[in-house]
Amino acid sequence: MSDTLTPAATVNARISPRGGLDILSRDEVARLADASVGGQRDLLRRCALAVLTSGSDSDDPRAAAQRFADFDIEVHQQDRGIKIELRNAPAEAFVDGEIIRGIAENLFAVVRDIVYNANEVAEGGRIDLESGPGMTEAVFEILRNARVMKSYMEPSLVVCWGGHSIGRDEYLYTKRVGYELGLRGLDICTGCGPGAMKGPMKGATIAHAKQRHWKPRYIGITEPGIIAAESPNPIVNHLVIMPDIEKRLEAFVRLGHGIIVFPGGVGTAEEIFYMLGLLLHPDNQSLPFPLILTGPRESAAYFEQIDQFLKLALGEEARKRYQIIIDDPVAVAMAMRQGLRKVREHRLDEKDAFFFNWSLHIPFEFQQPFAPTHRAMAGLNLHREQPLHLLAADLRRAFSGIVAGNVKEEGLREVEKHGPFRISGDKDIMAALDSLLRAFVEQRRMKIAGDYVPCYQVID
Amino acid sequence: MSDTLTPAATVNARISPRGGLDILSRDEVARLADASVGGQRDLLRRCALAVLTSGSDSDDPRAAAQRFADFDIEVHQQDRGIKIELRNAPAEAFVDGEIIRGIAENLFAVVRDIVYNANEVAEGGRIDLESGPGMTEAVFEILRNARVMKSYMEPSLVVCWGGHSIGRDEYLYTKRVGYELGLRGLDICTGCGPGAMKGPMKGATIAHAKQRHWKPRYIGITEPGIIAAESPNPIVNHLVIMPDIEKRLEAFVRLGHGIIVFPGGVGTAEEIFYMLGLLLHPDNQSLPFPLILTGPRESAAYFEQIDQFLKLALGEEARKRYQIIIDDPVAVAMAMRQGLRKVREHRLDEKDAFFFNWSLHIPFEFQQPFAPTHRAMAGLNLHREQPLHLLAADLRRAFSGIVAGNVKEEGLREVEKHGPFRISGDKDIMAALDSLLRAFVEQRRMKIAGDYVPCYQVID
Amino acid sequence: MSDTLTPAATVNARISPRGGLDILSRDEVARLADASVGGQRDLLRRCALAVLTSGSDSDDPRAAAQRFADFDIEVHQQDRGIKIELRNAPAEAFVDGEIIRGIAENLFAVVRDIVYNANEVAEGGRIDLESGPGMTEAVFEILRNARVMKSYMEPSLVVCWGGHSIGRDEYLYTKRVGYELGLRGLDICTGCGPGAMKGPMKGATIAHAKQRHWKPRYIGITEPGIIAAESPNPIVNHLVIMPDIEKRLEAFVRLGHGIIVFPGGVGTAEEIFYMLGLLLHPDNQSLPFPLILTGPRESAAYFEQIDQFLKLALGEEARKRYQIIIDDPVAVAMAMRQGLRKVREHRLDEKDAFFFNWSLHIPFEFQQPFAPTHRAMAGLNLHREQPLHLLAADLRRAFSGIVAGNVKEEGLREVEKHGPFRISGDKDIMAALDSLLRAFVEQRRMKIAGDYVPCYQVID
Amino acid sequence: MSDTLTPAATVNARISPRGGLDILSRDEVARLADASVGGQRDLLRRCALAVLTSGSDSDDPRAAAQRFADFDIEVHQQDRGIKIELRNAPAEAFVDGEIIRGIAENLFAVVRDIVYNANEVAEGGRIDLESGPGMTEAVFEILRNARVMKSYMEPSLVVCWGGHSIGRDEYLYTKRVGYELGLRGLDICTGCGPGAMKGPMKGATIAHAKQRHWKPRYIGITEPGIIAAESPNPIVNHLVIMPDIEKRLEAFVRLGHGIIVFPGGVGTAEEIFYMLGLLLHPDNQSLPFPLILTGPRESAAYFEQIDQFLKLALGEEARKRYQIIIDDPVAVAMAMRQGLRKVREHRLDEKDAFFFNWSLHIPFEFQQPFAPTHRAMAGLNLHREQPLHLLAADLRRAFSGIVAGNVKEEGLREVEKHGPFRISGDKDIMAALDSLLRAFVEQRRMKIAGDYVPCYQVID
Repeated sequence: MSDTLTPAATVNARISPRGGLDILSRDEVARLADASVGGQRDLLRRCALAVLTSGSDSDDPRAAAQRFADFDIEVHQQDRGIKIELRNAPAEAFVDGEIIRGIAENLFAVVRDIVYNANEVAEGGRIDLESGPGMTEAVFEILRNARVMKSYMEPSLVVCWGGHSIGRDEYLYTKRVGYELGLRGLDICTGCGPGAMKGPMKGATIAHAKQRHWKPRYIGITEPGIIAAESPNPIVNHLVIMPDIEKRLEAFVRLGHGIIVFPGGVGTAEEIFYMLGLLLHPDNQSLPFPLILTGPRESAAYFEQIDQFLKLALGEEARKRYQIIIDDPVAVAMAMRQGLRKVREHRLDEKDAFFFNWSLHIPFEFQQPFAPTHRAMAGLNLHREQPLHLLAADLRRAFSGIVAGNVKEEGLREVEKHGPFRISGDKDIMAALDSLLRAFVEQRRMKIAGDYVPCYQVID
Repeated sequence: MSDTLTPAATVNARISPRGGLDILSRDEVARLADASVGGQRDLLRRCALAVLTSGSDSDDPRAAAQRFADFDIEVHQQDRGIKIELRNAPAEAFVDGEIIRGIAENLFAVVRDIVYNANEVAEGGRIDLESGPGMTEAVFEILRNARVMKSYMEPSLVVCWGGHSIGRDEYLYTKRVGYELGLRGLDICTGCGPGAMKGPMKGATIAHAKQRHWKPRYIGITEPGIIAAESPNPIVNHLVIMPDIEKRLEAFVRLGHGIIVFPGGVGTAEEIFYMLGLLLHPDNQSLPFPLILTGPRESAAYFEQIDQFLKLALGEEARKRYQIIIDDPVAVAMAMRQGLRKVREHRLDEKDAFFFNWSLHIPFEFQQPFAPTHRAMAGLNLHREQPLHLLAADLRRAFSGIVAGNVKEEGLREVEKHGPFRISGDKDIMAALDSLLRAFVEQRRMKIAGDYVPCYQVID
Repeated sequence: MSDTLTPAATVNARISPRGGLDILSRDEVARLADASVGGQRDLLRRCALAVLTSGSDSDDPRAAAQRFADFDIEVHQQDRGIKIELRNAPAEAFVDGEIIRGIAENLFAVVRDIVYNANEVAEGGRIDLESGPGMTEAVFEILRNARVMKSYMEPSLVVCWGGHSIGRDEYLYTKRVGYELGLRGLDICTGCGPGAMKGPMKGATIAHAKQRHWKPRYIGITEPGIIAAESPNPIVNHLVIMPDIEKRLEAFVRLGHGIIVFPGGVGTAEEIFYMLGLLLHPDNQSLPFPLILTGPRESAAYFEQIDQFLKLALGEEARKRYQIIIDDPVAVAMAMRQGLRKVREHRLDEKDAFFFNWSLHIPFEFQQPFAPTHRAMAGLNLHREQPLHLLAADLRRAFSGIVAGNVKEEGLREVEKHGPFRISGDKDIMAALDSLLRAFVEQRRMKIAGDYVPCYQVID
Repeated sequence: MSDTLTPAATVNARISPRGGLDILSRDEVARLADASVGGQRDLLRRCALAVLTSGSDSDDPRAAAQRFADFDIEVHQQDRGIKIELRNAPAEAFVDGEIIRGIAENLFAVVRDIVYNANEVAEGGRIDLESGPGMTEAVFEILRNARVMKSYMEPSLVVCWGGHSIGRDEYLYTKRVGYELGLRGLDICTGCGPGAMKGPMKGATIAHAKQRHWKPRYIGITEPGIIAAESPNPIVNHLVIMPDIEKRLEAFVRLGHGIIVFPGGVGTAEEIFYMLGLLLHPDNQSLPFPLILTGPRESAAYFEQIDQFLKLALGEEARKRYQIIIDDPVAVAMAMRQGLRKVREHRLDEKDAFFFNWSLHIPFEFQQPFAPTHRAMAGLNLHREQPLHLLAADLRRAFSGIVAGNVKEEGLREVEKHGPFRISGDKDIMAALDSLLRAFVEQRRMKIAGDYVPCYQVID
């Protein structure tokens, strides 16, 4: 709805924080101000720009950076607290000179999380980031610092995954599913950005209005590498920036009570393999976790293909942990509600918290950050002679690398320099993988605009 | 979004009131229960059905009545209060067996207003319904009883008028305007129903979510004759049913602080003439009242035609009281905001309330209910040798009669029985009127479905 | 705590209404303004002065009137609403020039109720004030207009009766009982004024603070004849002025869920006989209604005397409907809580409202206003050959007349003119009555200051 | 009001946390549980008992410990969070088997602060507790963790100091002052405990009810050494336990916007010297900080004596920083309001926070914990040849040591073992000090019960 604005109209503004960043010590204020001109400056600038261009539908991380090359953000110190100073900020984030409140909130979330991640998590010295429990602690601390966990809330947070680049029918379908979830009082958590991440929130917003659900939660969880390509819609009223992909994935599954997967590309495939890898681990065998794959009639073939690939790669066992529902938003919402009831019972039985899924075991392999270099991609073990969850872990990494090669700055650079990533493994898996990826290309699921040049190469 | 439901799925349910109807005396409870089986029964049934089928896009008042012929509603007495019993109610109003909360609220609003209008206004004996001040008092009492007036609120309520049967581009445009109004913290009041009455509310809902506007107001004002054709969207969180068209129009202009007119048909023309008739009255000359006519680029010709007709019929003076803005939602919202600032200043200067426009003079001619019989239509004075506001009043009535002939049960019957209404007046006015009406027909603004057979005939 | 102020310091002020009187029609505003200079002027002035001198401990209705002889109140009309203008108002109601908020609220309650009682109840023509149901309707309408009934509240409103002129030990005891009630989440309703009407509220306030009971209700119900002698403490956050004693008593028993009686004088005796008269009526036999008489150790003899008199006059049956607890606030609160549980169950069983005791039958004799003239007092039937509840009704009237002769303006005048009231009846009842009244005199329960000259004479 | 309970009635109970302790990580839960059975166990037990016996008026820290020798508290771990298990807890903290909500909140505050002080402040390694800024940071962190700072609040927090052992007239006077502060919308912060720490809160509670001040703040700041002697009244709705006296004093002056000093003993004298020491420091010369010494007529001589001693010890300059008002609660409240206005302006000018007084310079000498050993007491420099604020600092320490010798467990033991503390300094100062202390003894300001045996000895 920002299309009536001229391309690069900009605004200068000073903004005062709301909630969360309002009671700071002098030292914290100083560290925040320092961060905005020091080591975190570029990161802060990039993430802030993503929030400020959230109306945009582009997924090219460099487009906004080019359009608003002069954009700058600085955190100013005052004894009373902080002010954010914006220079040459996108005018589309403002209404008659005043910033849209939801965007201001998300902007402060960016400042909050980037500084917290840097000062308290990475350098605080309190958290052992080399151990599994330490990484879980980091996820917990970041989420708590962002105040997204509520102790009194029933299990009602549905994570929606799916592509940012999807067809119109698919997009409208995600809205309809969001609408049906909202009618049932459920809240939405996505990875921010357009497409399947935005549709469910818009649908739920209308349904929440009809149901007079006054304190709805639209949680967006992102990370610095993806935020520029998938900027957070201002409907998001709780934005969290996790330090990396793996902690972002962990945040989804610890915070959310159930997951719906819409059609998508490699990013979505990565998420499916992450989730199934966890659910196939022996320790999680008896843990209820509703996982529903769904899309409109037009997507039926897509899901069949996914289903076949999952069966081939992970076996019949994997298919018991998810449900595919085609073209039936009501059935999706009812199945999710049913699944959440089981989650609730299980948490009560285990005296586990509603706000954080402590019981879910996440193997170390799924937590370790994966840097998608050519060497790392070539080293992936995509063979069957290993426990299923480890194969799932490496398949997850394969898709993760391809996402990076498609839309992340770092990945794009790597591929430009060294050519496509090379991956190899069991013949039938590789063949199936290749045809799956080709189908994504054909269905234009890889990128929003332009022709797609594959960033990977399957080696027999 | 109810299209996945089978056509006439029904539900039986008992519903408890929320707010407003919770502290009743034994007598009131008895009167309510009596009303639901006595004189108001049919009215109550019709209005309730309209609320329960609010997802529907049909404007045929008899369609729902036929689909849900077995539907019944009864108000039950209990010492503790009342219960509403629904039999064979449209399943689309329910989610997994539970009524949508917004629909339940609107249902209770129907009961509240129908009984209040009958017991307190029509028969209470307190209000002199034959006098102008008495009619204004009735409007005030009904609005207060419905609790839509808030003493502490700044002038921020924008009334949106326009057709229920409009093109897709026009509909999307009303959403965009609603979105821009919502971004500026403005609330929406419409006449309920689809099209231009629904779009602004949906747009505003998304904008209000982005601006974290937690207590938005979506006020729907309707009347028994129109509710079946234009059923209230459940986003409406304050529904009021006025006893007749004239009180509904008075409610709009007393409660709202500014008006936006989208493209529409004869109903919209009726509203424009009502409003201009008031503003052209000498007593209202210095009263600020923002009135903006707007539509997408495709509607430019439509508004030019309206503009020409207004100039021809009411003269150059009339054009000073409205503004036409084509294809620019941001400009519309900014102009409205500007206009509301003047309204605010004027109210403060005059020590007038923000919640009810006492200063606006409404001549008796505009308050008297107009029954669109063939005799009344034939008797309209559409000649220029009279004060402008009286000519406006009769033009308003002419359009009102045609609306009745198009979509109201009573009017449809009249026309079926006696043939089209016959209207006459100054030659040039009649010619212009005829060509305007023909244009409405061509543009399919008269009815949603089927071919249009004119219900009027212009006589030289 | 107003003792640091000089006796008759005064203030002029203009006050804007809060809640309740904020959405008025032009006519209502005009009627309010008229009332303040017309027929209700004197009544309004007297009641307003009582509210403004609420810190005072005097029970002489003429004392404040003399100290603030120049005091005046006027309701001013503005289109936007009303303003209250105070001239020469007691400075003690103000803090640094600003009126205490609780006093302002009670002042507006006075305006609201006096005008409502005059315009809507007495002259509205809607309510038949000559019939029993009509009088109950009047009570309901006044309470609803005052917004003291809450639909969602559990039975938790305890009415505290007792003398305004009580000893220090008794006063401290009422605070302790109020404290224990407050600890148990119960709310307090009294007749306003000092002594036993103030103590429970102060005690409950401290307990509510400790229990974090954020929306406590301190309801004061008074009437024009008594308000000057027993001015409402500003802790009272819901003040209601009923038109006469009988409607005030009905309001207590319809609104309250249980009653505690502290030591008092004839007013308290009147209340006991009213309540027992009701509970002894055959129609109320199975109705649960906790009634507890309590006081500190020092008051044990007092309650024994009351107990004996009740037994003598009304028989053993009457004693089953109340409980006497001496010097044990915890036991009182626990017994009340227990009683309220039964009330709750009964209301649920009968589907009766929690907010108004519809099921209680109040015979017409208890509703009819009693004017304490010498002729009426002499005509009371205090003999045993009649149904118990009728004897109770006339005993109630006898005490009522003596209250009037003690502290009400009208009664004081009557007695000054014609000498003491003369009452007669069964010998033993009259003897017991006489000794009870003498005991009240000795215990200084008749008046706060000065020697007491009896306003009655018992005739054999 | 707990006097109807038998002396050592006890209750076993399990309590769930409210607010603050509800979103914990598994590790934190484990550390809390460990603390309750490990190193912090005794401290936790003592502080919890103080909260649970808050109705008691005893100031003997060992009395409650003896009466409830079997009392125990344990924090239990559950994945979902924690439970507090109480064994043989004082029944006076319960109402019909349920803990008083305010007491439960304070109990959780005890757990929260003790663990936070131990794990995060003392051992967290993040804060440099050897430096001045580090100690200020610790104070800030503890207060923030306790959520007592509110970013949106105007300067309105009045710290009330004064004796826990004061006469009835003095106590009633503190209530009257609290009442007048409350009438003016001011909130109260004290050191917990009876006497001058309880009176202002009770008075303010009544005034806040009259002024409809719905979110009043009654902040109690205590420390482990004093809490047993001065247990927190449950009116306190924000309880904070600072690790030592010096941080407690710093919390008072950083959090509060003005200070009122009522009559008291050595503890009060300590507080006066602390405050004046700060205000006499050159860096604080232009900092507005209202400081009012007040008491009833009976206390006039007391304040004259204090005034003389301050003049003698600190000179005429010191007298400019405080104001003595005798027997005039209204004047006190008005002077405080006036002072707060200046604080507000100053903070706005300096862009300093309202919630924490960053601008106040606190010299290192005032922050260093002082352990009142015989050696330390003997080493105090009470001579004039040094900067005034240093002399004030050592006089503060002298009084602090005497407080310890009077009511703190550790101090009591020291004095029992080694005899009275010996202090020396300038002759005239020592003489004046001695006579001041003697007067405290005579006026029974040293201890609530029993004869007072001085714990100090002035050496020439």
